[in-house]
Amino acid sequence: MRSSKRQIKPLTPHEALDKLGSVSVGRAVYTCRGLPAIRFVNHILDDGQVVIRDHTAHIPALGNSEPGPGLMYQTDKTDPATGTGWSVTVTGPATLVEDPATAAWYRGVLRPWAAGDCDRIITISPHLVTGYEIAVGGEAT
Amino acid sequence: MRSSKRQIKPLTPHEALDKLGSVSVGRAVYTCRGLPAIRFVNHILDDGQVVIRDHTAHIPALGNSEPGPGLMYQTDKTDPATGTGWSVTVTGPATLVEDPATAAWYRGVLRPWAAGDCDRIITISPHLVTGYEIAVGGEAT
Repeated sequence: MRSSKRQIKPLTPHEALDKLGSVSVGRAVYTCRGLPAIRFVNHILDDGQVVIRDHTAHIPALGNSEPGPGLMYQTDKTDPATGTGWSVTVTGPATLVEDPATAAWYRGVLRPWAAGDCDRIITISPHLVTGYEIAVGGEAT
Repeated sequence: MRSSKRQIKPLTPHEALDKLGSVSVGRAVYTCRGLPAIRFVNHILDDGQVVIRDHTAHIPALGNSEPGPGLMYQTDKTDPATGTGWSVTVTGPATLVEDPATAAWYRGVLRPWAAGDCDRIITISPHLVTGYEIAVGGEAT
């Protein structure tokens, strides 16, 4: 049986971004043709920006350094065996990286897992950062 | 360096639901106050239905056995060390379970990880099931 001492502890935005930066995969959440859509991608945290590499052209983002519509990005790390973990969600404008040198640099560090056309680099400015962790006795994991 | 032999293989709906049923946590994706929202929950697959337990009243679902608005549910299992894994998304009407005996039974098998008010049981009829796996040489993981 699991302990009843497990508690939900909100994370500060700083703690939440630290957690996000400690893992390499997450989910972009957006609207596509009027329906909610979710896409599993990998990411890095670079200078406070969440940077993802898109496999197709589905994720909405504008270029020319003009921020696109808001994009939500969620990541988590959980341990079903102990029932502990954390979840972090960031929301903010998504921008397509058009500068060739910058995009090439990001492509060098953001390696897609599978073969395929995956050349779009998108940055998300985390205007809203929320997160929580489920820990035993409120201790950080 | 990672192998370039890794490929994305679509899953059939049957394979995708099997994968979903093999794990215990995922993410409900919906619209809240006009914005996309995502909520980390645990689930079971029961008689072809995805059954989740909601921590608050945020996830939209209607009662009286009347199907509510469409809900998207996503789950995945990944191994960043090998760059392999799978992701499955189901979409369909969400229904609040109001029958006390049925809801109590689900509460017995769907154990929330943390203390708190988490009594709503929601079933999702998976009308649309999509998924893929990233495997080396197309082999199933």
